[in-house]
Amino acid sequence: MADHDANPPPVLRWEDSPDGPVVVLLDQTRLPHEEREHVCTDVPALVGAVRELKVRGAPLLGVAGAYGVALAAARGYDVEDAAVRLARARPTAVNLGYGVRRALAAHRRAVAAGADAAGAAAEALAEARAVHRQEIAAGAAMGEHGWALLRELLPGGGLRVLTHCNTGTLVSGGDGTALAVVRAAHRAGELRRLWVDETRPLLQGSRLTAWEAAREGMAYSVLPDGAAGSLFAAGEVDAVLIGADRIAADGSVANKVGSYPLAVLARYHHVPFVVVAPLSTVDLATADGAGVEVEQRAGHEVTELAPGVPAAPLGAQVYNPAFDVTPADLVTAVVTEAGVVSPVTGEGLAELCSRSRTTASGTGDGMMNA
Amino acid sequence: MADHDANPPPVLRWEDSPDGPVVVLLDQTRLPHEEREHVCTDVPALVGAVRELKVRGAPLLGVAGAYGVALAAARGYDVEDAAVRLARARPTAVNLGYGVRRALAAHRRAVAAGADAAGAAAEALAEARAVHRQEIAAGAAMGEHGWALLRELLPGGGLRVLTHCNTGTLVSGGDGTALAVVRAAHRAGELRRLWVDETRPLLQGSRLTAWEAAREGMAYSVLPDGAAGSLFAAGEVDAVLIGADRIAADGSVANKVGSYPLAVLARYHHVPFVVVAPLSTVDLATADGAGVEVEQRAGHEVTELAPGVPAAPLGAQVYNPAFDVTPADLVTAVVTEAGVVSPVTGEGLAELCSRSRTTASGTGDGMMNA
Repeated sequence: MADHDANPPPVLRWEDSPDGPVVVLLDQTRLPHEEREHVCTDVPALVGAVRELKVRGAPLLGVAGAYGVALAAARGYDVEDAAVRLARARPTAVNLGYGVRRALAAHRRAVAAGADAAGAAAEALAEARAVHRQEIAAGAAMGEHGWALLRELLPGGGLRVLTHCNTGTLVSGGDGTALAVVRAAHRAGELRRLWVDETRPLLQGSRLTAWEAAREGMAYSVLPDGAAGSLFAAGEVDAVLIGADRIAADGSVANKVGSYPLAVLARYHHVPFVVVAPLSTVDLATADGAGVEVEQRAGHEVTELAPGVPAAPLGAQVYNPAFDVTPADLVTAVVTEAGVVSPVTGEGLAELCSRSRTTASGTGDGMMNA
Repeated sequence: MADHDANPPPVLRWEDSPDGPVVVLLDQTRLPHEEREHVCTDVPALVGAVRELKVRGAPLLGVAGAYGVALAAARGYDVEDAAVRLARARPTAVNLGYGVRRALAAHRRAVAAGADAAGAAAEALAEARAVHRQEIAAGAAMGEHGWALLRELLPGGGLRVLTHCNTGTLVSGGDGTALAVVRAAHRAGELRRLWVDETRPLLQGSRLTAWEAAREGMAYSVLPDGAAGSLFAAGEVDAVLIGADRIAADGSVANKVGSYPLAVLARYHHVPFVVVAPLSTVDLATADGAGVEVEQRAGHEVTELAPGVPAAPLGAQVYNPAFDVTPADLVTAVVTEAGVVSPVTGEGLAELCSRSRTTASGTGDGMMNA
C-alpha cells in the first residue's frame, strides 16, 4: 500500500504533455497511504482540486493559482474569467488570490505590450514559475529565521514542539512554513519530539505532517487535538509552531481551526506560540480578525469518518469552520522569509511588508471581487 | 440502519435466562446506527465489554461492576477474584471500584452471617440493584441541582451549553450527569443550543450525546473538538457542562481527554465551567490531580478511523491518554446529587461527602489493590 520511495513525486508541477500543458498535483487526500498524482487539464479541474483539498496549504495555493492562470492562458481559455474562478475557490486563503493576481498581472502586461496569445501565456507561466521558486526560497528563509528565534527563546535545545495541521513540503513544495523551522531544529539535532495534532476533521496532521516527519526521521507522536492540553499541563511542550492562512493588518492570525485553543493554552502555560508564514500571507487590506471571512465547510467532513463510515446520527447539525482567528496579543512572534516580527503589532507587520515587498503583489482582494 | 424506536433498550439490565443469569448491555460502540444488545454470561465477558467501552460512563461502570460481582456469585465463580478483575478493568474510573466494593461487601456480609451460596448471591444482586436505583435517582437530583445553579449563574435563560464526551442516559441508565442538567434546561424551554464536541478519538460526543440529544428533540450541533475555541471567541457559549471520571480530594477533576482545554478556554473567556458527577466519583483517598492514574489507550484508536481505514503512517507513535485533569481553581462548581460545591475546594467537597455518605461506600482503592 504505502509507497515510500526515497523521492516522492513533487507536490505540484507543470508538464507540457503531447495533448497540451497540464498541472500535476500530488493528491494530498490520498496520503499517507498512496502517493498518487492528480492531473488537471483545465481551470475547473484545478478549482475542484483546491476545493477538495487535493492541493492545499497557503503558499502552495498561491503557486497553484498562478499556474492555473498560466494554464488557462496556454490552453486559450478566458484568462480573466479563470482568474476570478481560481481566486474564489477558497475564500480564506489569501495566497490563492496573491498567486492568481501575479500571473494575471504578467499576462495583462504582456497583452498590453502587444504580445500574441502564446507570448502572453508564456509570460503568465514565467510568473507562475517565479512564484513557485520564491515560495521555495521563502521556506528556506523561514526555516533559518525561525530556528534562530527558537535558539534565542529556548537556548537549552532538545526541543519538544507542538504543531497543528500541515505546514511542510506539502504546503509549498519547499521546506514549508512552521515545519521548515522544525526541520531546521531536527537537522541541528535539537528536536527532541514533534507533537503532531491529528487536526480534525480532515486529519492533515496525522495524515500529512506525520508522513513528512516519518520521511525525515523525526521523533514524532500523533495525538487527538484534545490531548494537547495534557501535554501542556505536563510541561511537555516547549513551543507551539503553526502556519497561517491569512494574517490581518493588526496581526490577527487566521489558521486551521484548533489553532486558537492552542494559543490560549500556550498563554496559560507561558509557552511561546510562534506563527510561521510567508509575507504573501499578510493581508494589509483586512484590518483585523473580525474582517477575516471564515470558510464553513460541509458537515459530512465531521459526521462521516470515511465514505460509508458514519459517526453521528443522520441529520445531525454540524459546526465546521475551516479556520479560527488568533488575536495578535496571543502570538509570540510572526516569522516570515524577510524576518521576525515580535511583539506582533500592526506597525511591525506593516514595516516588514514595506521593507520587503519589492516584487509586485498588491494587497487586498479588490480586483478579484470587482 | 438507524433503529429509532420510541423506547430504546435499557442501557444495562440483569436477566435471569433459562441458562442462568446474564448481564445485558446496550452496546455503546455500535451507536448511533445500531441499537444492539450485548450479553455477558461471565465476568471475563463483562471485563472485556468494559475495556472495549461497550459499557462506559462513570456511574454506569459502578452499576456494571456491582452486577458483575452478583453475576460471579450467582454462577458460582470465585467472587473475590471476580471483584479484583472487575475493579481493574479500567484504572481511572473510581466508580467501577465503588460498585464492585458495594456488591462484594454485601456478599461478604451474607457469607459471614452464615448464608449459603444462593443466599449470598441474592444479597450481592440486591446490592447491585440498589446501586443501580441510586445512580438513577442521583441523575434526577443532579439535574435539579445543576439547573438551579444555571438559573442563578445565567438568569437570562436561552442557554447555549457546550459539552464534551457523553454524560447522559448512556452513562447511568437515568438522566445522566452533565446531560441531566442539559435535559432539565431543555424541559424548561431554556436550552437554545447544545454544542456537542465530537470527542476524539472514540467520538462519544458525535455518536452518543448527539444520539441522546436527537431523541430528546434538542437543538444541537456537533463540532470538531478544535472548533470549540471559535465558539468561545464568538461569544456563543454560555456555560460548559461536563462529567467526571474521578474527583480528587483537592477538587481536581479527571474527565475525558479534551476537558482541560475547555476549562482553560472557559476561564479565558469568563464562561462558567461546571462539573456534574455523583458523589461516588469523589475519591477522597486520591489527594490531588497528580495522584490520578491516567489510562493510556491503544494507538489504533487514533491512527485508524475504522477497521481498515488508516489515518496515519504505518508505525506512527501515538499519545492517547483517555483522561485529563482539570485543577479545582478552573472549575466554577461541582454539582452532585447531594448539592453543589462552589467554589470548589477540598474542604467543601469533604464536608459534602461527610454530610451525605449514609450508605456504605469506603473511599479509596486499598482493598482492591491488596
